[in-house]
Amino acid sequence: MQNVYFDNAATTPMRQEVIEAIIEVMNNNFGNPSSSHSFGRSSKSLIEKCRKTIAGFLNVSASEIIFTSGGTEADNLILKSAVRDLNVKHIITSKIEHHAVLHTVEALQKEHQIRVSYVNLDEAGFIDYFHLETLLQSEEKTLVSLMHINNEIGNILDLKRVALLCKANNALCHSDTVQSVGHFKLDLREVPLDFLVGAAHKFHGPKGVGFAFIRKNSGLKPLVLGGEQERGLRPGTESLHNIVGLEKALKIAYENLEKETYFLRDLKKYFINSIKAEIPNIKFNGASFDKEKSTYTLVNVCLPISHEKASMLLFQLDLKGIACSKGSACQSGSSQNSHVLAEILSHEDLKKPSIRFSFSIYNTKEEVDYVVGVLKELI
Amino acid sequence: MQNVYFDNAATTPMRQEVIEAIIEVMNNNFGNPSSSHSFGRSSKSLIEKCRKTIAGFLNVSASEIIFTSGGTEADNLILKSAVRDLNVKHIITSKIEHHAVLHTVEALQKEHQIRVSYVNLDEAGFIDYFHLETLLQSEEKTLVSLMHINNEIGNILDLKRVALLCKANNALCHSDTVQSVGHFKLDLREVPLDFLVGAAHKFHGPKGVGFAFIRKNSGLKPLVLGGEQERGLRPGTESLHNIVGLEKALKIAYENLEKETYFLRDLKKYFINSIKAEIPNIKFNGASFDKEKSTYTLVNVCLPISHEKASMLLFQLDLKGIACSKGSACQSGSSQNSHVLAEILSHEDLKKPSIRFSFSIYNTKEEVDYVVGVLKELI
Ligand SMILES: Cc1ncc(COP(=O)(O)O)c(C=O)c1O
Ligand SMILES: Cc1ncc(COP(=O)(O)O)c(C=O)c1O
Repeated sequence: MQNVYFDNAATTPMRQEVIEAIIEVMNNNFGNPSSSHSFGRSSKSLIEKCRKTIAGFLNVSASEIIFTSGGTEADNLILKSAVRDLNVKHIITSKIEHHAVLHTVEALQKEHQIRVSYVNLDEAGFIDYFHLETLLQSEEKTLVSLMHINNEIGNILDLKRVALLCKANNALCHSDTVQSVGHFKLDLREVPLDFLVGAAHKFHGPKGVGFAFIRKNSGLKPLVLGGEQERGLRPGTESLHNIVGLEKALKIAYENLEKETYFLRDLKKYFINSIKAEIPNIKFNGASFDKEKSTYTLVNVCLPISHEKASMLLFQLDLKGIACSKGSACQSGSSQNSHVLAEILSHEDLKKPSIRFSFSIYNTKEEVDYVVGVLKELI
Repeated sequence: MQNVYFDNAATTPMRQEVIEAIIEVMNNNFGNPSSSHSFGRSSKSLIEKCRKTIAGFLNVSASEIIFTSGGTEADNLILKSAVRDLNVKHIITSKIEHHAVLHTVEALQKEHQIRVSYVNLDEAGFIDYFHLETLLQSEEKTLVSLMHINNEIGNILDLKRVALLCKANNALCHSDTVQSVGHFKLDLREVPLDFLVGAAHKFHGPKGVGFAFIRKNSGLKPLVLGGEQERGLRPGTESLHNIVGLEKALKIAYENLEKETYFLRDLKKYFINSIKAEIPNIKFNGASFDKEKSTYTLVNVCLPISHEKASMLLFQLDLKGIACSKGSACQSGSSQNSHVLAEILSHEDLKKPSIRFSFSIYNTKEEVDYVVGVLKELI
């Protein structure tokens, strides 16, 4: 077998229908959505249709969806404006957030002298909800930023509980939902978040487009200045074909959610059982072993081998055509150690190689057999 | 005749070859360029190839090209970091820049208490180079930001003169070259700019991708925080297919520059002659009448009709299938008055309708005949 792609948390291949939707736009619609003539209006109406679809899936208003160039930009827009324009003086987050959140919060701390609190984590990487509640007892205007699904270990946060805690304590609530949009239902009438973000390339859509959900009347202001696009919140000529691709990908994802979730849960279970059977003493990082507390899209394992053997492992897997990830590729961090694992693993386990395998509907059990076989051989 | 698109300064249709290049990437390359496995490496090498081509056309190093989501983001990145990280305390610009520059400079003035000077303009919209020189006699660290080609009136700045003046006075020099990249040769060994920006959709490339040229060792830091992409200057998963489309579009543009420039110069001349013949008392805004001092891609005319008639004009043109622009669509400003014309026109002329017609290689003389005929009829 050649070329097994088990790195779907880094990015996913586009669905054929998404590619086709993009091609159709590239061939037929090129007007600037800001132009008042027919070419412009038809582009504008495409974008508004996309906005409406996306809003529908999240159970929010279309005007609360702002298109961006991806998850990173959307996280930055929300966090920076919250401090600059909403008078937030205290951010509560965790040490295992994506760098789009962590680095932004660190910069805000330096430049705006806000207070930053990191909520305690247990050894599986779950936040301590009671500690969060304690941290929320502050007089300053507070924003909580906690990711729904961790991109490295797959842990699922109880988003509703966090959002309700925030509400009860008059704090704003942001969640980096890049790994959950398109993979989990998110009903924002039930989960009273103020902000969340998505990136199309994580759910079989195009790279370079994402969105922010920004609750109405939030008072958020733009990160980038220029024209009046996206209701003044995000200037620059819109990436029309990418936005249409995003919508198409999200639509297919949510319309097939049950079926595809079922398939992937089964695949993950098969992977876990196979690897456990073939590699004794393997450990599962975070909660990735737990089918309720962890996303069905990935598993993160700590392999029982020595440091020396470890350094060659990813390279050898690559030679065998297997794509997976040490740390998370979306941070270009494949050569660095994972800041997430550094927070939760023992000193001992941190020395061993940990690998994230992440799945999509395009994977098969045969691929699992192949990968587990190769791993066994290498170890 | 139906559907004449004379709004190419707002955005352009993609070339068929560009669409094909994008499709090829969408079908064959999806790895995250930050991943170390083969899928990632092949994406990475595509991006680096694109970077090299673009750098080659500008006669700079590949490492000096940073991909962004468009011209607006690139302008913001440069201007904001210059103030925040390079200690710029004084910005010299003009009142007829694009809002991506103007609004950013205004915000910097407010938030960072920098000094802003606007260089004097003559009634054709050209800067007063002597005034610029005077403004440059300042002790504070200064950045000049002047656009190469004005998107509304088409005036061409003497970029080399400005860049040399800046050099001589130890000022940093940025130019918004969104309207010139792909339309004019830019040799940055000859023109010692520190920064410039481009947007693919202005030269028959995809929307939602652009780049910044950032001179080596400039010390610029990122606008958005997150991963280490683009040498740490612009995080977020790269829009691979868009970047490939950008490269393809720029390559075709520069390889056919002479031929296409010749065609468009001729078309613009034909347009000018026709409209002058059919509509007496028509005026040309800025230098758009002058074939040396104005870009060959557009003309901006002031029509000799009353205010009452004027308000219906764009609408009537649209009904006849003619797409053109009042003000500049890329600022979503089609319903507002143009801040550029407000600076240079007389009170009298500002009350009359001004329209920008902007051309591409996909336009024809027959279209010019049709448009001029319709205009004559309406007036
Ligand atoms: C001169 C100029 N600068 C900047 C921009 C902004 O580019 P973008 O819309 O791709 O961000 C435009 C057009 O939109 C422009 O004409
Ligand atoms: C949890 C999380 N947040 C943010 C991002 C950043 O998204 P993008 O690379 O599209 O900007 C990623 C992945 O790249 C992610 O996994």
